Amino acid sequence: MNFHVMTLFPEMVMNGLNTSILGRAASNGLLAFEAINIRDYTLERHGKVDDYPYGGGAGMVMQAEPIYRAYTALCDRIGHRPRVVYMTPQGRTFTQKIAEELAKEEELVFLCGHYEGVDERVLEMIATDYLSAGDYVLTGGELPAMMMIDCISRLVPGVLNNDVSAEFESFHDNLLEYPQYSRPEEFMGKKVPEILLSGHHANIEKWRREQSIIRTLERRPELLEEAVLSKKEKLFLEELLRKKAENQEEDTI
Amino acid sequence: MNFHVMTLFPEMVMNGLNTSILGRAASNGLLAFEAINIRDYTLERHGKVDDYPYGGGAGMVMQAEPIYRAYTALCDRIGHRPRVVYMTPQGRTFTQKIAEELAKEEELVFLCGHYEGVDERVLEMIATDYLSAGDYVLTGGELPAMMMIDCISRLVPGVLNNDVSAEFESFHDNLLEYPQYSRPEEFMGKKVPEILLSGHHANIEKWRREQSIIRTLERRPELLEEAVLSKKEKLFLEELLRKKAENQEEDTI
Repeated sequence: MNFHVMTLFPEMVMNGLNTSILGRAASNGLLAFEAINIRDYTLERHGKVDDYPYGGGAGMVMQAEPIYRAYTALCDRIGHRPRVVYMTPQGRTFTQKIAEELAKEEELVFLCGHYEGVDERVLEMIATDYLSAGDYVLTGGELPAMMMIDCISRLVPGVLNNDVSAEFESFHDNLLEYPQYSRPEEFMGKKVPEILLSGHHANIEKWRREQSIIRTLERRPELLEEAVLSKKEKLFLEELLRKKAENQEEDTI
Repeated sequence: MNFHVMTLFPEMVMNGLNTSILGRAASNGLLAFEAINIRDYTLERHGKVDDYPYGGGAGMVMQAEPIYRAYTALCDRIGHRPRVVYMTPQGRTFTQKIAEELAKEEELVFLCGHYEGVDERVLEMIATDYLSAGDYVLTGGELPAMMMIDCISRLVPGVLNNDVSAEFESFHDNLLEYPQYSRPEEFMGKKVPEILLSGHHANIEKWRREQSIIRTLERRPELLEEAVLSKKEKLFLEELLRKKAENQEEDTI
């Protein structure tokens, strides 16, 4: 899968994407990252890519022309008009589901805004998706673009060298992950739960599932509505809810 | 404000944070970024910082000791126990409100997990906040940490060189931002809306507010419930809703 990031900060993007798991997948040819420097496409003598907003107001607006020229050069190169994601707090909030949908593309372009945004006309011409990383404001689109690329890349077959790892992860069956422990058995007086040292796989699996249910109830109860639970696990959850209700009653007496 | 990022990928973090607006604020002494390489704190001969999970399962778990030693070295250096944010899909979803709260800290630590997570015991000992960038899974905590730092940094006085810019931005009055236009007046046959060239500030302001309302209704209607609108703007919104309802009726006939 090929990612093209249109940006004013190509080094930042390439440094961020060529690290760790994604960097390895790129060396293996599973992914390719390209940062397209928008500044390379301005016709303005001094490399300027922004100007004052019409109608007044603070800040600068990224101009249409350099972005449009960068985009058409890319289209010429790959032979078709790819999907272009524009990062904006005004977009749909990015989710795992959207990542799964975008992971089906062969080529994917991310357009990173800066300053007070991008001239509306070029967005109308090239942007196919408006996405937001969440309800918060950032100084530019690079970090959310890199984050979305990271999330999408994980879903490309072969990128995680351990397929089990992708499967048994956060949100599996709509439950949060159970707590993890590694060597040593005792750290600063804190011991690993004994069951994990028992070697009894069925019991360990049962304990982990229950920990996942407890944790999801504590931290993200809304996820439980769509959780995939066995009959026994449903009873376990009902028991937890009953105890919780009892405690709350005691608190209010 | 001082940010300390505990990570296995210090270069990636420093490259990402020393760019653009944040890099400038760091040179001006308004912000300071430090990447703490967890690997520097392992006592293991070969620099190992992870091991198999107790109880079996795929992947590796980051061990408690190197993280704990990196943390106590930092505490010794700054003279107190700072707030430590652990990045996890299990945490509270990060929002602008949480950013505002965290921006009040003098020192802030971000702990970035990788692989199958971090030994639960060290989290119990040092983590004060569990935060998630959103409902999606990433290969590590570095990108969401950098994103949160970007968001928090913007709120530190002086970081945005234009205070107006922070005020009149996305989500102002709970409305999405109006469309922006810059030179030239006509691009590929698309003209800038005439009103923006009129020089009539009151009319421009009125048009922009209306565009914000239209856009919020189209893209994020739930925001309108808490939007701050004048009487005239409320009437404008009611008229939009009335037209929308009419169109839907026509569609179903």
